[in-house]
Amino acid sequence: MSKFWSEAVKRTEPYVPGEQLDIPNLLKLNTNENPYPPSPNVVDAIKTELERKLHLYPSPGADQLREAIGAYYNLDTSNVFIGNGSDEVLAFSFMAFFESDQKIRFPAITYSFYPVYAKLFNVPYEEIQLNRDFSIPSEAFFQSEGGVIFPNPNAPTSLYMELDMIKDILDNNPDQVVIIDEAYADFAPGSAVSLINSYDNLLIVQTMSKSRSLAGLRVGFALGNPQLIQALTRIKDSFNSYTIDRLAIAGAVSAIKDNEYFKDTTDKIIKTREWVTAELKKRGFHVLPSSTNFLFVSHYNYDAETLYAKLKSQSILVRHFNKEAIKNYLRITIGTDENMQALLQTLDLIMAKEK
Amino acid sequence: MSKFWSEAVKRTEPYVPGEQLDIPNLLKLNTNENPYPPSPNVVDAIKTELERKLHLYPSPGADQLREAIGAYYNLDTSNVFIGNGSDEVLAFSFMAFFESDQKIRFPAITYSFYPVYAKLFNVPYEEIQLNRDFSIPSEAFFQSEGGVIFPNPNAPTSLYMELDMIKDILDNNPDQVVIIDEAYADFAPGSAVSLINSYDNLLIVQTMSKSRSLAGLRVGFALGNPQLIQALTRIKDSFNSYTIDRLAIAGAVSAIKDNEYFKDTTDKIIKTREWVTAELKKRGFHVLPSSTNFLFVSHYNYDAETLYAKLKSQSILVRHFNKEAIKNYLRITIGTDENMQALLQTLDLIMAKEK
Repeated sequence: MSKFWSEAVKRTEPYVPGEQLDIPNLLKLNTNENPYPPSPNVVDAIKTELERKLHLYPSPGADQLREAIGAYYNLDTSNVFIGNGSDEVLAFSFMAFFESDQKIRFPAITYSFYPVYAKLFNVPYEEIQLNRDFSIPSEAFFQSEGGVIFPNPNAPTSLYMELDMIKDILDNNPDQVVIIDEAYADFAPGSAVSLINSYDNLLIVQTMSKSRSLAGLRVGFALGNPQLIQALTRIKDSFNSYTIDRLAIAGAVSAIKDNEYFKDTTDKIIKTREWVTAELKKRGFHVLPSSTNFLFVSHYNYDAETLYAKLKSQSILVRHFNKEAIKNYLRITIGTDENMQALLQTLDLIMAKEK
Repeated sequence: MSKFWSEAVKRTEPYVPGEQLDIPNLLKLNTNENPYPPSPNVVDAIKTELERKLHLYPSPGADQLREAIGAYYNLDTSNVFIGNGSDEVLAFSFMAFFESDQKIRFPAITYSFYPVYAKLFNVPYEEIQLNRDFSIPSEAFFQSEGGVIFPNPNAPTSLYMELDMIKDILDNNPDQVVIIDEAYADFAPGSAVSLINSYDNLLIVQTMSKSRSLAGLRVGFALGNPQLIQALTRIKDSFNSYTIDRLAIAGAVSAIKDNEYFKDTTDKIIKTREWVTAELKKRGFHVLPSSTNFLFVSHYNYDAETLYAKLKSQSILVRHFNKEAIKNYLRITIGTDENMQALLQTLDLIMAKEK
């Protein structure tokens, strides 16, 4: 603590991202990155851009990317906002739609950045308990005072909420913004994008870090009614004129346009997910039915924190959350088939020894 | 205005960056970009990084770049904070060091983003009138209530404040943070970096967009006492874990390390600046003595807004600010010798016609 710190600094409880260890041959299954590199077109597009105008400012609104994303989703450019990763988009959303005197609601088990934003921006909040099966009770989000935010599929539970329930939440919050964080939607059976033209209170946030293999490039976006997009733009233009660099714009445009590569890698991950789910179940794991690129698992006979530590000692990193309700669960990113084979083999060794 | 907008959105008055026109053969002298491309090493470093791990998250703190900048300035890594352009660093600084109930001070003629931040974060402010020669009256910043921020050299005036005056301001604000925005310091006779270990209330903000030719890459940084850096880090980690992408980190590290290229291009710009200053004076312009990569000029016989419009019609873009006190001034970025020759020729034509 320092006399120079503002009240905002004092009240923050910063987010702690998954460990980024620099160990050779580390199998990194802890931050839900894509195991596949981005489309080769992305690399080519960045190389071309690299030779052009790195000494000149990029487009303030990343307009070329807004157009590409709009075209991809059959939306107008005025429905699209670009940010420096979906975390920045979420931060701007807290500033743009939530107030210091109106309680917002989010699930008690969810992306742990939400309470961090709430503390930073002094937004009061209510954490909604999940059902016993970890599903989100949609009615508990009806008639919120200050707005609603939740991921769909939820993280770290990996569970998907059907669109009918989303509609119920939207219908029952006509004067509040409902933010649906679709970081993992490309691995799920559906997305609320189809609802954008029907609900003026719906803001969808997505990222290119997961399904588009671009975690290293920092690009996220929001989709919504033009009035919501305009609010985000006003905040952004009062914060940082140019948030996305030239290379990130070029790479992201190219990633959005290479639909074949995207479908191919996404399908592979889903296939691997289904296979690993079955394999883990065979070994006595309880595996939640995942609609994401990760699994949320527990085992009756083995303590999750111990498994986490033993895997780490074998250079396999998964994520364990030190939170009472989920302390016996591990979140495991879906890698390639080879990655997951290595995980299963190591688990077999650990569990054989433990017996 | 929309019922969904927060009070923050309603009170913002977004910054308007210099025009980014997409006209072929446009001579762009309006946003103080470097006319020279970045060091060839930067392009090579990005190409290498490009083949590595774009699907994995970057270092949350851009640690490699913090180390490179620390080494360059003979400071510890704990003195360095990295942001997505200096605008983001400034935004985080407003959150980290300024309060809603304590007036901060900045010059009445200065970087026009400061009042934009103040409105966004609800920080009250007092604008300090400049002296008649546009210099900053340092005493007017003594004993501020909530802190001080100003650029050195100041923009758009291009004028440099001597370090003795900076020390006076620091000595007379022992309990407030004094932010010196050194976006243009590499073109000036000095920098306050040498004062960092003597003043715990000094925060210096710099950018790689100007002297390092990397406007397209979005990298800025802050230098200061570890307690100030820690405050910025807490804000950043409550806002966006990964603000700088892998390519930007690789490029920026390489730019900091290529001191020869940096000195070479900076020297060229200063030489061009001195030559254009003399040439403009010959033509009857009043040119403020610049310590930056731009000039702030006016002419007794020609209206600045008219000159701006006539230059624009000839595909030369300079910046004119619609602000009473400086409405007869133009801000002109220093380009290459050829660029400036073209500007002078066009001015000669315009001024001959006007006679």
